Amino acid sequence: MAEEAKKLAGYAAVDNHVQNNQVVGVGSGSTIVYAVDRLAERVRQEKLNIVCVPTSFQARQLILQHGLTLSDLDRHPELDVAIDGADEVDAALTLIKGGGSLSPAHRGCLTQEKIVAGCAKHFIVIADFRKDSSVLGQQWKKGVPIEVIPMAYVPVSRTIAKRFGGEAVLRMAVSKAGPVVTDNSNFILDWKFEHAQNWKEVNTAIKMIPGVVETGLFVGMAERVYFGMEDGSVRVRDPPVI
Amino acid sequence: MAEEAKKLAGYAAVDNHVQNNQVVGVGSGSTIVYAVDRLAERVRQEKLNIVCVPTSFQARQLILQHGLTLSDLDRHPELDVAIDGADEVDAALTLIKGGGSLSPAHRGCLTQEKIVAGCAKHFIVIADFRKDSSVLGQQWKKGVPIEVIPMAYVPVSRTIAKRFGGEAVLRMAVSKAGPVVTDNSNFILDWKFEHAQNWKEVNTAIKMIPGVVETGLFVGMAERVYFGMEDGSVRVRDPPVI
Repeated sequence: MAEEAKKLAGYAAVDNHVQNNQVVGVGSGSTIVYAVDRLAERVRQEKLNIVCVPTSFQARQLILQHGLTLSDLDRHPELDVAIDGADEVDAALTLIKGGGSLSPAHRGCLTQEKIVAGCAKHFIVIADFRKDSSVLGQQWKKGVPIEVIPMAYVPVSRTIAKRFGGEAVLRMAVSKAGPVVTDNSNFILDWKFEHAQNWKEVNTAIKMIPGVVETGLFVGMAERVYFGMEDGSVRVRDPPVI
Repeated sequence: MAEEAKKLAGYAAVDNHVQNNQVVGVGSGSTIVYAVDRLAERVRQEKLNIVCVPTSFQARQLILQHGLTLSDLDRHPELDVAIDGADEVDAALTLIKGGGSLSPAHRGCLTQEKIVAGCAKHFIVIADFRKDSSVLGQQWKKGVPIEVIPMAYVPVSRTIAKRFGGEAVLRMAVSKAGPVVTDNSNFILDWKFEHAQNWKEVNTAIKMIPGVVETGLFVGMAERVYFGMEDGSVRVRDPPVI
């Protein structure tokens, strides 16, 4: 059910937001696989001229495996659209990313994902129905990933716990001894928060702590979310009008 | 003259702010050399029990060469005091760091310097009279160093120029082909700004750009600055009372 829902969301985003002669940001994760399938299909069938900018090693491999045109932010610093998944999405389209919900495929890519999303005119999120949370943190309880400079992980962890509650735990690697090292050679803290917060304020306050490289909170970035639903439909969510 | 002024400032900071049984953050640069000389002298003469946390490779070497006790933020995430230099200091004790004014000794260490300063109960700055600027950017015209994730340097540079004016130039290495790579494996943009700004707001806005790791603007962090003067005196500056 979840795989079919991911496919529905991925196809809807590519069909509704990708046009000829565009630069497209390609996100990471298990849902994005379906979006890239559909993108490659449309490029082939409609002979589209599309350039892709990846958010991770996985995204880069997907682009190459599908024979799509690979670029980067040096050559294409402005993207027409970026499509990416999320671990959790709330009613205001605030996202948690970089934790991995069930799949580890896009764990720890939050910094590159936010860089690419920030370069896109339109940032579109795709997810299956399980990622829809009325309140962030209720569903997966994995917390908010925070990328930190290695020398600073202890003071940053203490500062976060003291100022915002909960605890910020160093993410340990499964595949080697010691902590997870990101593609930027940094560490990840998983901040298990105790209750919902003003995410915009908290995101700014955490990023301003010296040693914090980026947070997995995406606030005010997503323009639209496509949820693939259990019944085979696609639910669209836009930001609330304030 | 400048060397004597640096010594005056370094000695004053160590004599006024370091006490027995403290953890001391040791900054980088040509002025800090004198502070470490004096610290080592006091530790020897007064038999002080002092633990030092460095902000750079240079600081670490200085600590070891002087036979001082070396630690890090894992073991000592809270410092009693940190002493560091600055490229420029304005009337409000806003600093520019990480550019190197005349000496290259502390170029590019801004991120570690801000991490260590942020862990200190008291952050004390030492400088010679040439670093005193009524308006930041008037004296050295080197701009504000900004540490960025390598994949993001082009979009970050464009965003800064568009939003804040001036230009943000990739810092190139002298000792190798290609850009300067920091101790955190990142690049440095030097933002040559056109006019004075609200530094608190600009610092927050720049750090919030995805891909920015840290800025060389230290706003509201320094508690006191010691300027060594040409006439052999030391001028003390505290933040203005608001």
